[in-house]
Amino acid sequence: MTETVITSEKQKVVLGFDKRFVMIGERINPTGRKLLAAEMAAGDYSRVVSDAIAQVEAGAQMLDVNAGIPLADEPKILAECVKLVQDTVPVPLSIDSSIVEALEAGLSVYKGKPLVNSVTGEEERLERVLPLVKKYNAAVVAISNDETGISEDPDVRYEVAKKIVERAADYGIPREDIVVDPLVMPVGAINDAGRKLMHLLRRLQTELKVNTTCGASNFSFGLPNRRGLNASFLPMMIGAGMTSAIMNPLHLEDIQAILGADVVMGHDPNCMSWIKKFREPQPEAAEGAGAGRRERRRARA
Amino acid sequence: MTETVITSEKQKVVLGFDKRFVMIGERINPTGRKLLAAEMAAGDYSRVVSDAIAQVEAGAQMLDVNAGIPLADEPKILAECVKLVQDTVPVPLSIDSSIVEALEAGLSVYKGKPLVNSVTGEEERLERVLPLVKKYNAAVVAISNDETGISEDPDVRYEVAKKIVERAADYGIPREDIVVDPLVMPVGAINDAGRKLMHLLRRLQTELKVNTTCGASNFSFGLPNRRGLNASFLPMMIGAGMTSAIMNPLHLEDIQAILGADVVMGHDPNCMSWIKKFREPQPEAAEGAGAGRRERRRARA
Repeated sequence: MTETVITSEKQKVVLGFDKRFVMIGERINPTGRKLLAAEMAAGDYSRVVSDAIAQVEAGAQMLDVNAGIPLADEPKILAECVKLVQDTVPVPLSIDSSIVEALEAGLSVYKGKPLVNSVTGEEERLERVLPLVKKYNAAVVAISNDETGISEDPDVRYEVAKKIVERAADYGIPREDIVVDPLVMPVGAINDAGRKLMHLLRRLQTELKVNTTCGASNFSFGLPNRRGLNASFLPMMIGAGMTSAIMNPLHLEDIQAILGADVVMGHDPNCMSWIKKFREPQPEAAEGAGAGRRERRRARA
Repeated sequence: MTETVITSEKQKVVLGFDKRFVMIGERINPTGRKLLAAEMAAGDYSRVVSDAIAQVEAGAQMLDVNAGIPLADEPKILAECVKLVQDTVPVPLSIDSSIVEALEAGLSVYKGKPLVNSVTGEEERLERVLPLVKKYNAAVVAISNDETGISEDPDVRYEVAKKIVERAADYGIPREDIVVDPLVMPVGAINDAGRKLMHLLRRLQTELKVNTTCGASNFSFGLPNRRGLNASFLPMMIGAGMTSAIMNPLHLEDIQAILGADVVMGHDPNCMSWIKKFREPQPEAAEGAGAGRRERRRARA
């Protein structure tokens, strides 16, 4: 049993094969969000605050915080956002940057044990990120690509993940603090992307014995009814061993799929979370439709 | 690779680990449908005809036909319904009865190679049903319980399935003509029902090497938002090896979950079925919502 513990001052989240699936909210990220990027660059973090609150209210157990804005002072902005988000919501954070100085700035102000997002199998990245992870006693997302790129062969990606786990051990970072991202490829371009990913997830759980995360929405890229496809994809990955995802918790189809998968996995004792979320309204409040249906309609509006 | 071939005069359906999931329409069954039972007992099969057409239009690749009406002449009614349904729709059928004489009456009029639903591990049932399966060159659903009842232990159920496969071999029925029903239990009563079922499905696929089917809706019995839960359950079972289900193809949530699972499994070449089903309408027909959403709304009305 491999348990990855991530904490804030007030809360603890545990990733594990026998634990509920962990949803990491992805919204605080200016990539592809021009308005948010401009606001963050100008020091206006009001949308960061509202996005943090909305995602936690929607059920995210952790939040990813990214401040990747071209030409901006990313270390400064990321540190400010990490502080602000920790002052706003009680959940643990994933500190997300491709710039090592920004990761360190975020880590230096973080209260608790965060998730660092991310390291890859590239030598230069390993040598710069792993010492930081050790210094700040963090856990880290390990992306299964290296200098040669992203292999389509899941067994090659397994070997990259294994290399990262071994290298981390050299720095004194235990296996349970490595959360492998097996890399989700778009099935519209690579027809066996899903099958290969399930194979890799099973190996990561049974052989390398690590927890896993992914950017789930990439799977449906370019296809119609993406949320519908995600709602099949997520439960199947959970069944194959995936223990968390960086995702948009405001999509009710995704939340429903994950809560359902928790029930199927036996990770929702007595189905209480499912029942609480979807039980029918009392007769005086009923309008001929169950609570689940009404919520889905609202989410679409 | 185990391929179970079921045919009508016009169509062939193949169950297999590398094949699309097969939806067997469950609607032609008077159990719990008082009006349909009364009509069938009186020789009025108009609803049988309309249910057959609606299910095939909704995407069912096969139909289950059951005529279990207390005190009625079930062999006669089942044979008449099998003939009528075969005259109405081109898909292969599952001939469904707990009465062996009714199975034989249905088999005697069937054109093609049907699925017989079902045999159990009970000695008396094995001895009466397997000779019929052999005589009519059919395939058969093998339910994994015996005289001792339904075990909660999936490995006991595996042994029952193995016994049926071995006994069938004694009658000259090959493994590929046995479709095991691992028995879906309600998760509201048995919290680890889903996890045990995935374990059993994996063993049935990798060790016993048989195709599988189930009555999927039983899983969510007693819980709210049953269709939402089914939409997580079905993809996870497909990921674990289930190759068909006896289900209601009029539930669009279930259809979407299965089409999505086919994409994830790599069984929808170039995602063409998914794209065809859910592609956005052309601009002149658009109303601000995708085809998938509009269809879901209609399905609820």
